[in-house]
Amino acid sequence: MAKYDLHVLPVVDERGALVGMVGIDEVIDALTKETTKEVQRLGAVEPLDVPYFQTSFAAFLRKRGVWLVILFVEEFFTQTALRFYDPIFEAIKGASYYVPLLISTGGNSGAQSSTLVIRGLAVGELRPRDWWKILYREAGMGVSLGIGLGAIGFGRVLMYRDQHVDFALTVALTLVGIVTTGCTVGSMLPLVLRRFGVDPATSSTPFIASLVDVLGIIVFVHVAKVVMASVIAAHGGPVPP
Amino acid sequence: MAKYDLHVLPVVDERGALVGMVGIDEVIDALTKETTKEVQRLGAVEPLDVPYFQTSFAAFLRKRGVWLVILFVEEFFTQTALRFYDPIFEAIKGASYYVPLLISTGGNSGAQSSTLVIRGLAVGELRPRDWWKILYREAGMGVSLGIGLGAIGFGRVLMYRDQHVDFALTVALTLVGIVTTGCTVGSMLPLVLRRFGVDPATSSTPFIASLVDVLGIIVFVHVAKVVMASVIAAHGGPVPP
Repeated sequence: MAKYDLHVLPVVDERGALVGMVGIDEVIDALTKETTKEVQRLGAVEPLDVPYFQTSFAAFLRKRGVWLVILFVEEFFTQTALRFYDPIFEAIKGASYYVPLLISTGGNSGAQSSTLVIRGLAVGELRPRDWWKILYREAGMGVSLGIGLGAIGFGRVLMYRDQHVDFALTVALTLVGIVTTGCTVGSMLPLVLRRFGVDPATSSTPFIASLVDVLGIIVFVHVAKVVMASVIAAHGGPVPP
Repeated sequence: MAKYDLHVLPVVDERGALVGMVGIDEVIDALTKETTKEVQRLGAVEPLDVPYFQTSFAAFLRKRGVWLVILFVEEFFTQTALRFYDPIFEAIKGASYYVPLLISTGGNSGAQSSTLVIRGLAVGELRPRDWWKILYREAGMGVSLGIGLGAIGFGRVLMYRDQHVDFALTVALTLVGIVTTGCTVGSMLPLVLRRFGVDPATSSTPFIASLVDVLGIIVFVHVAKVVMASVIAAHGGPVPP
């Protein structure tokens, strides 16, 4: 109806006989409801079906609680990863304090990419078979945005007198890696979900962010192991893989 | 038009004379475009105006970069806060590894609340003057969801043999405090922005999450200072306020 500027659509049975009609006013109502569901899913809330104040407290607890628990379990892997890499964080004093900053920057870039792709799919601007064009663009975007943020991060870390150039470089390179990870995972996950028949909006912004958080820790540790190899070696002890 | 099921609206000048009309097909197009802008703002992307592949790489860098930089600067305060509370994290071995988990749970609950309020305002289900009813409901929701997640967190921490009950209790109580903070801040910030004439969707999901991240660290440290006072005292050294 949007394409041909129609106000009414006929409904026909299998023989082509008219059995009813759909007015554009009904379409607008349905569109608004669908959009609300999409927005709520993006915000990690199970769609409410009824307005805010008409939703019972128990229904709210269920529709929000289920997602908070899923995200909590997902996010617990950040603690598992940090614990696993404990020797690295012990060797690099203060490094663990940069973790929330670094991983949430990856999460933010992932949230942007997933939002663009999910909305693009919803309005038909993007098609799943263009995935490689999207991947190509998002990877380029991730590297470019990562270099920009890395430069800011490099300067900011060096403003602390007790931080060295090698740690500033670790933060900068981690940002490039993390933002690239965020953009590629954030853009591809909705397409993968769609491929398996799941509503892409199910991969809500927080879901992508938590996933990228865990990947971000792995990127950070591996950049540090290369750039700060001498510091880690000087501290001694076993180094996790 | 949605309210009275109209298909055409007359446009009149100040004397009431007909000067034109607006068809519902134009309204649907405008509605879809506005929704796309709203969704993109929620995902921390400046609205694109044109479809994904028609947006130039430079325009993308600008529209995404500006938000990533704002969020990066905002999120840098997590590092500042963690550094400030260094003596507490030094005293409680492994506590800093729980920071991403705890603060992002607050961010997730905040994202849910802000999504519900922003969408509610957009479709007219919620009115700014009902703020106290929203605050009342969100605070109750925060405490309830926080207790649920706190119980899960308490059990999960105790699954580690090297963690004690007092640390598990710290995690549980922090979750109650953080989720309540997330729900109240996440629901009120869009209303405050609206009050000052700013589009509520500007307080994107990642913006709320980063804000709640910083508040979450403060909640965590203060709960730890009460529950684990003896551990912190035994470690010695100055305790930040």
